[in-house]
Amino acid sequence: MMIKAGVIGATGYAGSELVRILYHHPEVEIKVLSSKNHNNQVYNSIYENFNKICEMKCDENELETIASQLDIIFLTLPHGVTSKLLTQSILKNVKVIDLSADFRLKSIEVYEEWYKIKHNNKDLLNKAVYGISEWKRKQISVSRLIANPGCYPTCAILCLSPLIKEGILDPDNIIIDAKSGVSGAGRSLTLTTHFSECNESIKPYNVTSHRHTPEIEQQLSELYGNEISVTLTPHLLPMNRGILCTCYGNLKDSYSYDEIKCIYEKYYHNEFFIRLTKKGVFPETKWVKGSNYCDIGFILHKRGDKIIIIGVIDNLIKGAAGQAVQNMNLMFNLEENMGLKAIPIFPV
Amino acid sequence: MMIKAGVIGATGYAGSELVRILYHHPEVEIKVLSSKNHNNQVYNSIYENFNKICEMKCDENELETIASQLDIIFLTLPHGVTSKLLTQSILKNVKVIDLSADFRLKSIEVYEEWYKIKHNNKDLLNKAVYGISEWKRKQISVSRLIANPGCYPTCAILCLSPLIKEGILDPDNIIIDAKSGVSGAGRSLTLTTHFSECNESIKPYNVTSHRHTPEIEQQLSELYGNEISVTLTPHLLPMNRGILCTCYGNLKDSYSYDEIKCIYEKYYHNEFFIRLTKKGVFPETKWVKGSNYCDIGFILHKRGDKIIIIGVIDNLIKGAAGQAVQNMNLMFNLEENMGLKAIPIFPV
Amino acid sequence: MMIKAGVIGATGYAGSELVRILYHHPEVEIKVLSSKNHNNQVYNSIYENFNKICEMKCDENELETIASQLDIIFLTLPHGVTSKLLTQSILKNVKVIDLSADFRLKSIEVYEEWYKIKHNNKDLLNKAVYGISEWKRKQISVSRLIANPGCYPTCAILCLSPLIKEGILDPDNIIIDAKSGVSGAGRSLTLTTHFSECNESIKPYNVTSHRHTPEIEQQLSELYGNEISVTLTPHLLPMNRGILCTCYGNLKDSYSYDEIKCIYEKYYHNEFFIRLTKKGVFPETKWVKGSNYCDIGFILHKRGDKIIIIGVIDNLIKGAAGQAVQNMNLMFNLEENMGLKAIPIFPV
Amino acid sequence: MMIKAGVIGATGYAGSELVRILYHHPEVEIKVLSSKNHNNQVYNSIYENFNKICEMKCDENELETIASQLDIIFLTLPHGVTSKLLTQSILKNVKVIDLSADFRLKSIEVYEEWYKIKHNNKDLLNKAVYGISEWKRKQISVSRLIANPGCYPTCAILCLSPLIKEGILDPDNIIIDAKSGVSGAGRSLTLTTHFSECNESIKPYNVTSHRHTPEIEQQLSELYGNEISVTLTPHLLPMNRGILCTCYGNLKDSYSYDEIKCIYEKYYHNEFFIRLTKKGVFPETKWVKGSNYCDIGFILHKRGDKIIIIGVIDNLIKGAAGQAVQNMNLMFNLEENMGLKAIPIFPV
Repeated sequence: MMIKAGVIGATGYAGSELVRILYHHPEVEIKVLSSKNHNNQVYNSIYENFNKICEMKCDENELETIASQLDIIFLTLPHGVTSKLLTQSILKNVKVIDLSADFRLKSIEVYEEWYKIKHNNKDLLNKAVYGISEWKRKQISVSRLIANPGCYPTCAILCLSPLIKEGILDPDNIIIDAKSGVSGAGRSLTLTTHFSECNESIKPYNVTSHRHTPEIEQQLSELYGNEISVTLTPHLLPMNRGILCTCYGNLKDSYSYDEIKCIYEKYYHNEFFIRLTKKGVFPETKWVKGSNYCDIGFILHKRGDKIIIIGVIDNLIKGAAGQAVQNMNLMFNLEENMGLKAIPIFPV
Repeated sequence: MMIKAGVIGATGYAGSELVRILYHHPEVEIKVLSSKNHNNQVYNSIYENFNKICEMKCDENELETIASQLDIIFLTLPHGVTSKLLTQSILKNVKVIDLSADFRLKSIEVYEEWYKIKHNNKDLLNKAVYGISEWKRKQISVSRLIANPGCYPTCAILCLSPLIKEGILDPDNIIIDAKSGVSGAGRSLTLTTHFSECNESIKPYNVTSHRHTPEIEQQLSELYGNEISVTLTPHLLPMNRGILCTCYGNLKDSYSYDEIKCIYEKYYHNEFFIRLTKKGVFPETKWVKGSNYCDIGFILHKRGDKIIIIGVIDNLIKGAAGQAVQNMNLMFNLEENMGLKAIPIFPV
Repeated sequence: MMIKAGVIGATGYAGSELVRILYHHPEVEIKVLSSKNHNNQVYNSIYENFNKICEMKCDENELETIASQLDIIFLTLPHGVTSKLLTQSILKNVKVIDLSADFRLKSIEVYEEWYKIKHNNKDLLNKAVYGISEWKRKQISVSRLIANPGCYPTCAILCLSPLIKEGILDPDNIIIDAKSGVSGAGRSLTLTTHFSECNESIKPYNVTSHRHTPEIEQQLSELYGNEISVTLTPHLLPMNRGILCTCYGNLKDSYSYDEIKCIYEKYYHNEFFIRLTKKGVFPETKWVKGSNYCDIGFILHKRGDKIIIIGVIDNLIKGAAGQAVQNMNLMFNLEENMGLKAIPIFPV
Repeated sequence: MMIKAGVIGATGYAGSELVRILYHHPEVEIKVLSSKNHNNQVYNSIYENFNKICEMKCDENELETIASQLDIIFLTLPHGVTSKLLTQSILKNVKVIDLSADFRLKSIEVYEEWYKIKHNNKDLLNKAVYGISEWKRKQISVSRLIANPGCYPTCAILCLSPLIKEGILDPDNIIIDAKSGVSGAGRSLTLTTHFSECNESIKPYNVTSHRHTPEIEQQLSELYGNEISVTLTPHLLPMNRGILCTCYGNLKDSYSYDEIKCIYEKYYHNEFFIRLTKKGVFPETKWVKGSNYCDIGFILHKRGDKIIIIGVIDNLIKGAAGQAVQNMNLMFNLEENMGLKAIPIFPV
């Protein structure tokens, strides 16, 4: 029997990628597409790439009603909305993967400090699992509510976790210089994402104040067993897709390339979606576009006590819709890469 | 004594190019910058490229008040606004170059049909001169009100006028396949000009219905001495600046390359801003970016009775602010290229 | 039993798209990848998007040897090479889809005039079928040698064929103003395709002299039953993928929108890969990127006796690798869209 | 009397920017353009933006001959070539600004280690002044041989020097995460700069091994009075122009924003070409394009003991041709900003 899925917030970019990926998924049937701004419109009039493919209309029934007909719901609503809509009784009927930030941060104080929104759903927050698939596989598979990670955190956490877990990185000097394509900012109109404003230029933004910072810190701290704070500097690049994180760290000791390589192999050797580059090769966003892969390379310098780790993902796939489907596969005990084996497409 | 200038609507792209060009102009002093949306804001907080260069504030005095202090006003307001604001008494005090469409079309019926706006300023319309500098030089130099041409018309008219004037082009089969960078759409936010929507794609728009069509037809008909109607197909390209028009025509007779070249030379040989390419060379938008030049090349084919003429301009300069300043120079009896000699900048 | 396939010339862009598509194809197994310039190199060291996916090495056995082990060969070699390599005896062992121009033009004189290469393989030329799938389905399915169409011809032919077949288009005034992304020029280094030279600019090239012209004329003439000559003006756009053709024609009579729509529906209603846009909607290249679709829209103007037809394809898929696989499906009696159902990916 | 100038290596991108800037310079006359690859060709056939502007031919006389007719020579030759060509006797006749790396590094060992080229011109090396205009003004004005800085070093040095000079930055943890447009790689063809390879992607390169590293270290060490080593990670961005450096440092003590601001003001308050952004505003490359400006902003975080400094330049102007002309102005006792006052052009 097919898994009956709904996408609430189907007309943003992450939503439309969910629709595309779920359409290709052999075990899923999309039953509901919902969008506040496009209620009752045919989906392919909003995304013409779906012509002759998706003739569904966006519906806007109550979440409660929708939930009762489905096996899984993907929510891509603005921060603060999901935690208001979601209830225990909905969760009884349906599994939920939330792509907003509402259930990512375990500390309500931290959430409220960074998002300037009151959080009134502590109960569900306690049940939610932070869905960084490669590091939370077990918890995800038995959870009914997944907080799908942000795009920067996905890339940064995958880059840094092995070293953090091994405890060999100085926790006081971790810098993540992050670069993202414009699709990460979504489909809402802003001057920053107006073509002539961002084309042919690079723009740093939310320097030291990006909301993905506490998410990275929470996950790394958990692995480290102690508080870690990081410096995150996001930059907007003139391209549609892709995130590259250049991570800088100081090692507590000197290491050889092979020693560090061993650590990455230890954690990622069996991971389908993580590809470690060869020595001297550093990933470029084009090598993962259109796919759920995360490519990672690193180099040691100075006396082997400084390290640069570089990772890339497709922000809309591994950084959003793809990882969400990966989490769904885990939750339904399917093969983790089902519907996600698309080879990166290049040049595109 | 310096010419005292004002730019009303200074915070759109054409407005900011006017500010930049006028700053470099040796005989002009900018006295007033005005912007409805940014009243009282410092100009360089809106356009940071003007840091340490333009510390003026946007003011929003009445046009009447502003006019009395100035020698020339450039207006880049939305269609329908200028013709409401402008009066005979203002025109007595100040010369005006209007970059909107309000005074371009001599027929009020045609204006109202294409712009769906009532036009109540027939008196001034009769006084206005259509400011295609190379073809209206004399009238411009004695006028107080210039209707500055649209970007597509500037390029298309410069390409086609010599052949039309000579009467050798079949008036029933003129096709202008036009391609424009996104800056032509201005700084207002739209889904069409949202980065991820227009980057890496080409979009035809207003096919057969673009408002620049009657403007081209009016000017060509005047030169031809008879009605000409053209087919104009605009396309939006993923780049900031530049317009390229590929014009297709049928010649009434067969011609050699040299015969046609002679005709272009006849009209353009002494034109500073028009550059004819060599045989077999076709212009690219990059060769004119940042300048007031219009480059034109052509080829004959079939039996010498079909012609393709290709022209390029920088849409914000020759297609807007540059031609406006060229017209100002004519109106004030200055050298026509004063302040406009910037060499095209490449690669940029 | 899986179809055993080889890609000869696997390291160009069309070649790498063939590899990607064939990897996803449920009935195909790639057995040989060959590349003159990268002999013996691991494929994913040339295209890093294939890391952990394709670990094959490029081999360079003789075509004859390769052929004996395979069911189908895709050839993406330079013009003039395929017709030298291919023999009757090879064709006995293996089916062949040739992506070069060598077997596209039925007239050797026309080929030699446009390509400036001697053609010495008239026998095979006579056996080859021009592989425009939607219009040659039957011949393709029984052929062993397919001449896969060029990218511009695919788009232009799909746009124009219904009107030509119905005989309602004036054959003397067909204009194809074509725009292409840079990937169409391949992976070989040229100044034209150097980033800073083509980024942020548009360049017309091979105006009236592009080699795809006779290919379009041959196919249209065959449908029309009489000689047709067209005007083709290609332009290079600053984007990776996509072709848009704006086709201009004069109708022999006046028609309504619905009458023309009927004609398109008659030919394309059952075509999986052709999508006709709604009235007033014109296709953009982004709606087909990453897919084998061709989207087509049109408008009538003047007195209904002029028509503009606009079509888009992904030049590397429907314009090359995708149509090749579509032809393979026909040759092996598989479902025509097998392995080709990827939904266009946007924004990418 | 006009300064007679020559540009040797006039057909690279830095060379063509020199030609453009010198054409606009009121006190300079270009007498010689030279290019090995385009000997005897008309300049505007190589750069069509110079049509009707520069009709000179590229000449290839011996440097000795050329030098005797000129006041200043700009050399943009490959590394290793200038130091072979240049002699004491040439320098007697003409002032020289060398845009290669040959005279930048004071230590021949360091040069040979990083460039893998033997350096045989120690005499001239000793006479050369490293031309970072804002920090070497006096030495430049009395020198006959200037080693014009690299693009990354110009940006990084301007960002970091005030803090280094004040001695408040921990010299062991300086990270420069640098991003550059593609024009920095020049006009020579490479796969890396092939449009479809670098468009829509970001690529780190020469991680920890970029040749600009020792140049930055030399200048910072000199200011600091002690050895400084830095981490430089360059990234290639899909845009034509612009460099942005995100510099990370640890302060030896805690500071307030205003304290650090004071330091920057102390060194840069009177600098025409350096613009400090307001608190909370970070520079974007678009704000300086087409100009000689360097915009700098910074932020403190953690307990005020960590700092991020972000700087931007136009890599072909302040990072190459513009700074070279700025140095020429100093050498000829002209106003330092003569010919360099172009306002940044946006959007372009």
